[in-house]
Amino acid sequence: MNTHTELTEALSTIVGRENVRVEAGQLAPYARDATPLFHAVPDAVVFPGSTEEVAAVLRLASERGIPVVPRGAGSNLCAGTVALKGGIVLVLTRLNRILEVSPDELLARVQAGVTTAQLAQAAGAAGLLYAPDPGSHTVSTVGGNVATCAGGLRGLKYGVTRNYVLGLEAVLPTGEILRTGGRLWKDVAGYDLTRLLTGAEGTLAVITEVTVALLPKPVDTGTGVAYFDSLADASRAVSAVIASGIVPATLEFLDRKCIAAVEAYAKLGLRSDAGALLLFGDDGDPAVVSANLTRIQETCTAAGALDVTLAEDVARADALLAARRCSLPALSRLGSLTILEDATVPRHRLAEMVDRIDTIADRHELRIATFGHAGDGNLHPTCVLDPDDTGAVDRAHEAFAEIFAAAIAMDGTITGEHGVGAAKLPFLTDRLGEDQVALLRRIKHAFDPAGILNPGKLGS
Amino acid sequence: MNTHTELTEALSTIVGRENVRVEAGQLAPYARDATPLFHAVPDAVVFPGSTEEVAAVLRLASERGIPVVPRGAGSNLCAGTVALKGGIVLVLTRLNRILEVSPDELLARVQAGVTTAQLAQAAGAAGLLYAPDPGSHTVSTVGGNVATCAGGLRGLKYGVTRNYVLGLEAVLPTGEILRTGGRLWKDVAGYDLTRLLTGAEGTLAVITEVTVALLPKPVDTGTGVAYFDSLADASRAVSAVIASGIVPATLEFLDRKCIAAVEAYAKLGLRSDAGALLLFGDDGDPAVVSANLTRIQETCTAAGALDVTLAEDVARADALLAARRCSLPALSRLGSLTILEDATVPRHRLAEMVDRIDTIADRHELRIATFGHAGDGNLHPTCVLDPDDTGAVDRAHEAFAEIFAAAIAMDGTITGEHGVGAAKLPFLTDRLGEDQVALLRRIKHAFDPAGILNPGKLGS
Repeated sequence: MNTHTELTEALSTIVGRENVRVEAGQLAPYARDATPLFHAVPDAVVFPGSTEEVAAVLRLASERGIPVVPRGAGSNLCAGTVALKGGIVLVLTRLNRILEVSPDELLARVQAGVTTAQLAQAAGAAGLLYAPDPGSHTVSTVGGNVATCAGGLRGLKYGVTRNYVLGLEAVLPTGEILRTGGRLWKDVAGYDLTRLLTGAEGTLAVITEVTVALLPKPVDTGTGVAYFDSLADASRAVSAVIASGIVPATLEFLDRKCIAAVEAYAKLGLRSDAGALLLFGDDGDPAVVSANLTRIQETCTAAGALDVTLAEDVARADALLAARRCSLPALSRLGSLTILEDATVPRHRLAEMVDRIDTIADRHELRIATFGHAGDGNLHPTCVLDPDDTGAVDRAHEAFAEIFAAAIAMDGTITGEHGVGAAKLPFLTDRLGEDQVALLRRIKHAFDPAGILNPGKLGS
Repeated sequence: MNTHTELTEALSTIVGRENVRVEAGQLAPYARDATPLFHAVPDAVVFPGSTEEVAAVLRLASERGIPVVPRGAGSNLCAGTVALKGGIVLVLTRLNRILEVSPDELLARVQAGVTTAQLAQAAGAAGLLYAPDPGSHTVSTVGGNVATCAGGLRGLKYGVTRNYVLGLEAVLPTGEILRTGGRLWKDVAGYDLTRLLTGAEGTLAVITEVTVALLPKPVDTGTGVAYFDSLADASRAVSAVIASGIVPATLEFLDRKCIAAVEAYAKLGLRSDAGALLLFGDDGDPAVVSANLTRIQETCTAAGALDVTLAEDVARADALLAARRCSLPALSRLGSLTILEDATVPRHRLAEMVDRIDTIADRHELRIATFGHAGDGNLHPTCVLDPDDTGAVDRAHEAFAEIFAAAIAMDGTITGEHGVGAAKLPFLTDRLGEDQVALLRRIKHAFDPAGILNPGKLGS
């Protein structure tokens, strides 16, 4: 009996043989996540069915020094769930129960493997809103959302995942089961482990259960679209909207290249002569939504918009939102490799940053289109290329390194919502400085002295 | 030259002799904070004038193993700034500059010693709102608010300090200056040190500068008051308000004993026959505020309120708010020692918890009245007694230990917004469990290997 077989048996004893995968064909889907260019085959994939099983797997791995990579849907874009050092990929998707939705307490408690959409739907059925809405919500898991502190389209008005996490159940790499926070809006007993685990990308503990705050469902929503000659004009309009005292639920932009790609892909009737498209929307009391949309329309017009339209009904609003939601698939079909990035700058520097991205792309002879969240300065520069063109792939890496440096120089960051993972780790010191990265390593050691949890990522 | 004189000289070299206090009379005001029954005289009090001076003091203290206790206004209620092990009290009040208020970016950047009220006023002057409003806002510092993750009256709708901190400048006990977060709503580069330092009560690093998110100032506000036979009725009304889809900005309660004390003190014309007073308020669009207040009024009436009144103007609203704001002074004059506590339970268990508090108070023959934040279940049971009656003081300690145990048993916590400090540290393991407290100690060690920063508090 070789070591591998022995490990399989030990894991099977914990989770059952049917929940352990070790054959090459079974491992292949878990060698990648949604991030291109990162690939590593684990030794085993394990699907625990309970928190206690997660703890037992971690204790086993700790004793033997085997790396463990926690994984939800694997929809992350930072190579956060690639098993760089081999070992066990711990897939949480069997922990898929919605444990409670409480309209009285305005909260829900779910296991980590529940999808964002399932949580949102359960909340909606109770007349409530789960506010965070990452683009991957139909497949991403709540545990993964918490691990990456997922953002989404509603970030400016509603905040990101961190603002909604009330409590966590999580397992330390050494097997202890922790319950952090709980069901309370106010609780300052101890360091804020709930927030520390939120965004820790599965390097400190394995999240098994999440309690989130919900909001009353907004009574009404409204959407509109504005076209501008340039992103600079659109950016000025965004600043003017904020200055007018409105923080809308949605403020998304597409640059000229995105508009063209989306129109070619989806034939939505977008204006091809525009340099920028601004999608805006708000929710809440019907009269307030209506007044806000009218004021945004007027503000965009005053800022020199070529054209501003308010959606007359839900169907038309959905068509507008489709333009934003299909940006990535529309761009993806322009090349067989799509690198979607996530640099972020202060809102008023958005146009300047997109200009810089365009200049960098031109110099490296790359096709990079940019869309993203204008409200919070979160840009998604997206490079489409041929993966077999190794020269282009190398140039893309150089270009993104320059883009991250430009974002940092503008008081921005290397990742607004996708995470660091393995993909951004080389840039982390540029963002945080050596003292802070050294501190992250000491924090990692406080949780994971043997370094078995998601090695080669944050804290490594 | 004795050691003490030598320390004075070394500190004077860093901050100037005029910013070092070592005489007994000068030290006395820094031997206490706002927490009764905790007292310890430091060896020196130092007032640094810059982040660099803070770093130099910390390096000196680290080299010599001298405890350092960071302090803002000393208005905390958990003995968080008492120098239990002597050493240096590091007072941040000279760092009192408002560095910027940006309406375009919806943020402010201030030094740690700026008071909450100064920040709120500067934001207000720019047409913006700094949402957190701890009761001590006229004296408390922003650095202290962040260190304790201060709450306040608007917690349910607006969240607490943590939700508004975008970035920090902080100095490690070993002297390194960190900049965490920044000016962005979305930034997931690294562990969330911003949130970890928020609520760490000055045990991990010394906060020197804070960047906070601001909101557009609400156009209108409205206030009302409802009286009920019992807190159970009031609590049902609160649940019904939330169930109706309204999350109001203010939902405060006073129990029967508080109403009596406030009326005796301030003669506001409160109904003395009521078992509970519920103060409610909202802000935002004028039509929405008006509609929400009317709906809350109707909901309270339907829940059996004895009487519900909406304030007709700002003056009348201020008078109502005064009832809540003067609860503490009104109770304080009933005895020369006032112990204000901060247990928190899920909102719907508020009445049950106040019943328990009353039973515990009666059994220990103590006078404990309770007021607090009904919206987020944050109770302030307040015991008034004679400090020379050592039997009563001992019984008060026993009573509060029982109150904390009762809160924990109801899925609550030992502190909602005041902090752990030295006062709650004995109860922390009951709340978090031994594994989690051990983890807090390892995190503390990652920041402060020599254990010089605020010893005897969180992480000790």
